[in-house]
Amino acid sequence: MFTHYKNTVQEGDLVELAGPRHKSDIFILIRGETLQTHRGIIKHDDLIGKPWGSQVISHLGKPFILFRPSLNSLILNTKRNTQILYPKDIGFIQVTMGIGPGINIIEAGTGSGGLTQALAFAVGKNGHVYTYEIRPEMHKLAKDNLSLIKLGDRVTFKLKDIRNGFDEKNVDAVFLDLPNPYDYIAQVREALKLGGAFGAILPTVNQVIKLLIELNRNSFSFIEVCEILLRYFKPEATRLRPTDRMVAHTGYLIFAKSIELIDNK
Amino acid sequence: MFTHYKNTVQEGDLVELAGPRHKSDIFILIRGETLQTHRGIIKHDDLIGKPWGSQVISHLGKPFILFRPSLNSLILNTKRNTQILYPKDIGFIQVTMGIGPGINIIEAGTGSGGLTQALAFAVGKNGHVYTYEIRPEMHKLAKDNLSLIKLGDRVTFKLKDIRNGFDEKNVDAVFLDLPNPYDYIAQVREALKLGGAFGAILPTVNQVIKLLIELNRNSFSFIEVCEILLRYFKPEATRLRPTDRMVAHTGYLIFAKSIELIDNK
Amino acid sequence: MFTHYKNTVQEGDLVELAGPRHKSDIFILIRGETLQTHRGIIKHDDLIGKPWGSQVISHLGKPFILFRPSLNSLILNTKRNTQILYPKDIGFIQVTMGIGPGINIIEAGTGSGGLTQALAFAVGKNGHVYTYEIRPEMHKLAKDNLSLIKLGDRVTFKLKDIRNGFDEKNVDAVFLDLPNPYDYIAQVREALKLGGAFGAILPTVNQVIKLLIELNRNSFSFIEVCEILLRYFKPEATRLRPTDRMVAHTGYLIFAKSIELIDNK
Amino acid sequence: MFTHYKNTVQEGDLVELAGPRHKSDIFILIRGETLQTHRGIIKHDDLIGKPWGSQVISHLGKPFILFRPSLNSLILNTKRNTQILYPKDIGFIQVTMGIGPGINIIEAGTGSGGLTQALAFAVGKNGHVYTYEIRPEMHKLAKDNLSLIKLGDRVTFKLKDIRNGFDEKNVDAVFLDLPNPYDYIAQVREALKLGGAFGAILPTVNQVIKLLIELNRNSFSFIEVCEILLRYFKPEATRLRPTDRMVAHTGYLIFAKSIELIDNK
Repeated sequence: MFTHYKNTVQEGDLVELAGPRHKSDIFILIRGETLQTHRGIIKHDDLIGKPWGSQVISHLGKPFILFRPSLNSLILNTKRNTQILYPKDIGFIQVTMGIGPGINIIEAGTGSGGLTQALAFAVGKNGHVYTYEIRPEMHKLAKDNLSLIKLGDRVTFKLKDIRNGFDEKNVDAVFLDLPNPYDYIAQVREALKLGGAFGAILPTVNQVIKLLIELNRNSFSFIEVCEILLRYFKPEATRLRPTDRMVAHTGYLIFAKSIELIDNK
Repeated sequence: MFTHYKNTVQEGDLVELAGPRHKSDIFILIRGETLQTHRGIIKHDDLIGKPWGSQVISHLGKPFILFRPSLNSLILNTKRNTQILYPKDIGFIQVTMGIGPGINIIEAGTGSGGLTQALAFAVGKNGHVYTYEIRPEMHKLAKDNLSLIKLGDRVTFKLKDIRNGFDEKNVDAVFLDLPNPYDYIAQVREALKLGGAFGAILPTVNQVIKLLIELNRNSFSFIEVCEILLRYFKPEATRLRPTDRMVAHTGYLIFAKSIELIDNK
Repeated sequence: MFTHYKNTVQEGDLVELAGPRHKSDIFILIRGETLQTHRGIIKHDDLIGKPWGSQVISHLGKPFILFRPSLNSLILNTKRNTQILYPKDIGFIQVTMGIGPGINIIEAGTGSGGLTQALAFAVGKNGHVYTYEIRPEMHKLAKDNLSLIKLGDRVTFKLKDIRNGFDEKNVDAVFLDLPNPYDYIAQVREALKLGGAFGAILPTVNQVIKLLIELNRNSFSFIEVCEILLRYFKPEATRLRPTDRMVAHTGYLIFAKSIELIDNK
Repeated sequence: MFTHYKNTVQEGDLVELAGPRHKSDIFILIRGETLQTHRGIIKHDDLIGKPWGSQVISHLGKPFILFRPSLNSLILNTKRNTQILYPKDIGFIQVTMGIGPGINIIEAGTGSGGLTQALAFAVGKNGHVYTYEIRPEMHKLAKDNLSLIKLGDRVTFKLKDIRNGFDEKNVDAVFLDLPNPYDYIAQVREALKLGGAFGAILPTVNQVIKLLIELNRNSFSFIEVCEILLRYFKPEATRLRPTDRMVAHTGYLIFAKSIELIDNK
């Protein structure tokens, strides 16, 4: 994915069609099909063979640009029925937890697979993502979302409650994106290798407080709590200024490291 | 790197030794050597053979934890004589520009190699980083910093002015971390494949304004300007609150995409 | 105003009727009239004689609370056809520029009188606000807005271009809320007493840059540029968290002091 | 105060002497005395008779500017042995709670009197501040601080525990700046008039949670929780950018209104 693309657009490619200041469409190119947008109709056949970055014009004369889908667009366009993680948080999670090529990571819950996509992309062919979910419909949806971007083979999808623990041992990292991570810290400790990275995201301070208590109780160390604010500007050279409104809160990020259990603390 | 470590600490490993609330030390394990810290002396020999995540005690009785170095620690500990990029910005740059396994990216200038480390880690064995620098001493320093973490083979270091252009064509992404990126936008356009991602970081609004003018002049599109604020909390369950002070500004992030040159704009 | 109210609601009072989580209505009580709201109809006669802070019920059975109008509500409810200053900025302007009882301040432009209301309230009976405006309809609107809250006698409204200077000399403070304050800095200097406070608010960095140039050219000193971010929380004890979205930008605040003209700078 | 100054500096005046980029000195002018600073010595006699905003030169040739003390400088220079409220918070408190000329407000605890100064200035000659403190040394210090700026007659200082309630009834506003405001909400309700404004500032989320519980239990309504971030810029026209570091947190602000007790909530 992302790197398997040819220089020109091929039938079967997952493409992103973006209009200026408009939400982009992400879809698979199929001969004979058409795309309906608010700014006019576009035939798939007219896109096949074009170089990436080309301009295409709808039947209403409106311009679009043809891109390989970006990770950001994929995440924000993920078909979903739950809250998703934002790119601002995903980027910081990856850098802080050291998620990159070759890493093995457990994620729970899977949700619609937004974060799963980013993790599967980052760990590469030699890493792996184990993702747990208890709701069958989310499990299914996430699987489909990962297949669409051809990263399904880097992910093991498990329809399973984590109350009784994870199946894996000695993984590099565990990320919990569920309302009660504090109920599973002992299980995390079992799965994580010593020195491994734990992460979670939580919307309320009440949840953060509960999680801090459990992390301390289970000898996690190097605990960090933070939040990331992302502010966009109107990118105009003669009237440069921040946008009027912004996202004020997605969640608090909590990180910790699993260390040797020590008596004299 | 990061994934080549054994389960126990080996001679020759790059290790991170971290004390609670203290800056960590990152160094290579060599038999017979000792590490001097403000919290006591530690013999390298005493670390060899220990499991990662173990506790070790200095001759003053102070505890340290033994970690595989994290990317964050590496970046923040990078031996340097310039301003470095912060993890909060690096994470967002990677997610926004789609930097992951298999990607080819140009970076200029190299500086002390802080961002180079993160990029080299992220692109994996099948990707590559081409990094340009005009100051010989920085060129040398960055090379050494990358060798230390065994990622030098994923990077081509160039001691070369980019005024006359880059040697590469059709790369996936170009990131400029220098004071006058606006002077090299035509060169970026030449090197970047259509649909490819451009990024830059700049401390002052005056520089951002100049860059916006040049990006528009060179038909870049989907231009975004933003800034990221990272706020840490004191991670105490009974007294949870943000820290007293924080970094107020590292730089403005500017992103854009190279698209087909179009007459009727 | 604000202090002339009796303990119970009187005919002719300006009242604020607020429903939980709904925008409040501010209006004058007139016998025989009715108020139409989305949550039902309320008769003015039913409010007269009630204590402030009372609950009243609409014909649909929906509850409202009866308040003396707060300054914040007045400003946010100001009948207007322009952008207004936000309470977060007004409060900091007042404290930074020392606006309080007995102060004489010039304001330009008047706009719809949102800031004028706050200034007139703050300077008390012994202070005074001189406000300049060139658009007759705004001049008229602001006058009406100030009459409504019975603070018109503390304000001199001038329908006049400030290009040729202000009529007043030796005032304590001058605040410019117009797009090109940098064109009037010499005029501000003429009107302001030595040691007096200058302030302005501007939406774009380009305007701030121009203003800084002119302030330096006119020997203003102790120049400060800042911005204020206000973040609200959902005030729920069991689920405390910031709101999802917030105002990202109202304007940059610029403050300076007029000092003795000095040759050797 | 602030408005009783003549156009030229008089013996006995409280003056502020400010150097560029240096903390200012605030002191009373006394014939024959000298001021020692890091940038040289200045004789009080050389200041008397000068216009406000004048430049004066120390015996080392360093320039200073002579100002009437600003409220901000006074607050930040307040002789103290506790944490003080910051101007960014004070301004918003005043606007939100409607603190202005003629208002009666209760404050507890007094602390070193930083907020007391701002309140006493804002309420003018016709308003009044009742301030409670249980530590005799703080009570004394605050009294001295208010005398210094000649606002002591607008303040009633009480050395008294508020556990048994406040002596005043029907005040316009109550502000609690102490670690456990949640222990005194019933007392606040007794003292505040219906429709009156309550405010508090608290450093930790744990305290905010407790306060929210008590406000709800005591039928306070229109409860708001927020925080204010103030970011300064380096005010240079050719290199405009935020400062490197900023205050990340002073406290959470909590506001509420006392309304009629209602059964069916």
